[in-house]
Amino acid sequence: MRSVEEHLQAVLAGVLPLSPLDVTLQDARGCVLAESVTAPWPLPPFDNASMDGYAVKVADVATATEGAPVTLDVIDDVPAGYRSAEVLREGTAIRIMTGAPIPQGAEAVIPVESTDAGMPTVRISRSVKMGDYIRLRGDDIALGELVSTAGTILGPREIALLAAVGRGRASVHPQPRVVVMSTGSELVEPGGQLLPGMISDSNGPTIAAAVQEAGAIAYRIGPIPDDPDIMLATLEDQLVRADLIITTGGVSAGAYDTVKAVLSRLGTVEFTKVAMQPGMPQGHGTLGPDDTPIFTLPGNPVSAYVSFEVFVRPVIRRMLGHQNIYRPVVRAVLAESLQSPAGKRQFARGSLSVEDGRYVVRPAGGQGSHMLGALAKSNALVVVPEDVTDLRAGSAVAVLRLDEG
Amino acid sequence: MRSVEEHLQAVLAGVLPLSPLDVTLQDARGCVLAESVTAPWPLPPFDNASMDGYAVKVADVATATEGAPVTLDVIDDVPAGYRSAEVLREGTAIRIMTGAPIPQGAEAVIPVESTDAGMPTVRISRSVKMGDYIRLRGDDIALGELVSTAGTILGPREIALLAAVGRGRASVHPQPRVVVMSTGSELVEPGGQLLPGMISDSNGPTIAAAVQEAGAIAYRIGPIPDDPDIMLATLEDQLVRADLIITTGGVSAGAYDTVKAVLSRLGTVEFTKVAMQPGMPQGHGTLGPDDTPIFTLPGNPVSAYVSFEVFVRPVIRRMLGHQNIYRPVVRAVLAESLQSPAGKRQFARGSLSVEDGRYVVRPAGGQGSHMLGALAKSNALVVVPEDVTDLRAGSAVAVLRLDEG
Repeated sequence: MRSVEEHLQAVLAGVLPLSPLDVTLQDARGCVLAESVTAPWPLPPFDNASMDGYAVKVADVATATEGAPVTLDVIDDVPAGYRSAEVLREGTAIRIMTGAPIPQGAEAVIPVESTDAGMPTVRISRSVKMGDYIRLRGDDIALGELVSTAGTILGPREIALLAAVGRGRASVHPQPRVVVMSTGSELVEPGGQLLPGMISDSNGPTIAAAVQEAGAIAYRIGPIPDDPDIMLATLEDQLVRADLIITTGGVSAGAYDTVKAVLSRLGTVEFTKVAMQPGMPQGHGTLGPDDTPIFTLPGNPVSAYVSFEVFVRPVIRRMLGHQNIYRPVVRAVLAESLQSPAGKRQFARGSLSVEDGRYVVRPAGGQGSHMLGALAKSNALVVVPEDVTDLRAGSAVAVLRLDEG
Repeated sequence: MRSVEEHLQAVLAGVLPLSPLDVTLQDARGCVLAESVTAPWPLPPFDNASMDGYAVKVADVATATEGAPVTLDVIDDVPAGYRSAEVLREGTAIRIMTGAPIPQGAEAVIPVESTDAGMPTVRISRSVKMGDYIRLRGDDIALGELVSTAGTILGPREIALLAAVGRGRASVHPQPRVVVMSTGSELVEPGGQLLPGMISDSNGPTIAAAVQEAGAIAYRIGPIPDDPDIMLATLEDQLVRADLIITTGGVSAGAYDTVKAVLSRLGTVEFTKVAMQPGMPQGHGTLGPDDTPIFTLPGNPVSAYVSFEVFVRPVIRRMLGHQNIYRPVVRAVLAESLQSPAGKRQFARGSLSVEDGRYVVRPAGGQGSHMLGALAKSNALVVVPEDVTDLRAGSAVAVLRLDEG
């Protein structure tokens, strides 16, 4: 049997960030930048007023106080977005709005609150120093300065800077298009009619949601019955739009395990047992002319979800261009004892919380690989090493956080 | 001047989660459930095999060992999704796949690995106990059990359980539709031609991205010039699809502050000064026949973004139905000294990290309200109380995390 590490290395081998795509800033949100961006102009691009007021020469208002205001002629009025054609001469003022370019010859701005807001003359009741209320060209970002580097995750604050330097689009690693295909003749689309022996498909909705949560685009197909022809035709149809394919079910040793039967024939997908619980039967390889990666996850719903978290999510995160592709792992105190099979790494479902300033993890009730009630109450996986079979309450354990990263 | 708390209470007053909407599970991802869901059937819905193998009576294989296997007639073959019409009699076996219903009369399942996988007879080389490899009906979830409650955030694990109990759709608080309208005659859409005195609009892309990051749907409009007729017409057009409107710019005391001029006339939007830095001029009220809430954020980009974080994001989170509507605040050690204006709460941009097991926050370079370079390097806001003007390096400060919550 393969170890978890060996399988993880195998599935990550050769996975690269998806080729950069030029997208609008809105579509770039949450994506990883694939280029370095330098400023084609400084920020601010020109000296401008930081307050609404009047541009003046410092000497003209040197004596101005509330008791003895100074009156100046207002020779122009500059809203934001316009540049005054006038040159400010001694004894004059130019009305100016926040953000508007400082007129030639002006040395400072008097805030409107220290004036009578007058036109065509203004009474000014305070003095200023050279440069007061002026934001200097380039005092935020210099011309040619590197404002963002490849690898940056684009959130609102990074987008602010790209927009300010005139970028309406950016080159990013696009979101992988991930086809999620649940298989099994026993499966019915949730909400559909259940015949005897059938169950509602939870793997399709679950893995699709997990794909989206990982940052990718999910296309749900199925559930598909255990029919080799239908399965092959569906996979071929989906190849055109898939950067990654995930199937669930049909990979045991049984007589009706169609995914394994169909894909084994093609010779590009390898089926292996991985020393873990849940999730032992794993399949991974490539499909079609573009060597599209495919994961065949087990059909038990908890096994499928845990396998996704351990193997598929890091692959998706790498395709997205993230540096850190793994969920955070923290050390926590185990609140209840836990048994684990020898020779397998167990990923036990549990609930992580902070109690008295330390992490405590409480194993969720049922650890069977069909126990969705316990899974829904969990926010973490307790990682029990292969050589550990009994963990006492109070032990320190490694815990993979499912709600972060 | 209003305090930050007073203004926050004012903008949150009367805000409720949006009326529940019935959506597909895929659209429900990330949303808050607005109903309680009980199980219309138990999980598993019927006793079923946990392994591929052969259903048997325990007594028939009591003596079976590898050295002395027992041979039984195989009277039926049950793939998953089907129910055997046969009743298992003594001396017979029924081949069964994982997940298939246990046939009437069967007491346990022999895993295929302990057989010769034979048909129409099978050689069995081990014994079993009553119930071995059978998952009992209801051992995960009982009929009628509460599986999810209103207020639950629907991630993959919660969706798994809803799907398993047959829910293809769920009633959730939908994502608010938020119109983001930047205003200012000086603004050009990023990538467009800049005339003298004009700048690239960063507020539109930034606030739209922040809206999306908060979990809502953003519609970007503008930039709109400082023209009252255009502004009013645009706002009226947008009202039909908006649960919330956010404008930026045009709210100072200046002569061209069109947002303030236009909306003051309507009498439903209040313009106030809030004792904070950045972000002092704030406007808030309602618009149109549905009393659509509107925020008028300041035009300085850092002011607009910080105002969004402090006032608008909690409103969006409440509309989404979240219990916890605020960003997490942590205590951190201030790495460098910081000055703050008297009488105002400062939200200084900074970079939060963990050093030697404790939070350390380093103020970002430029704290001017136009300093986007420093903002892009920040992941947190240092909250300096109103009565504090000087903070020494090493002080303990409250820090609002911008990358969590």
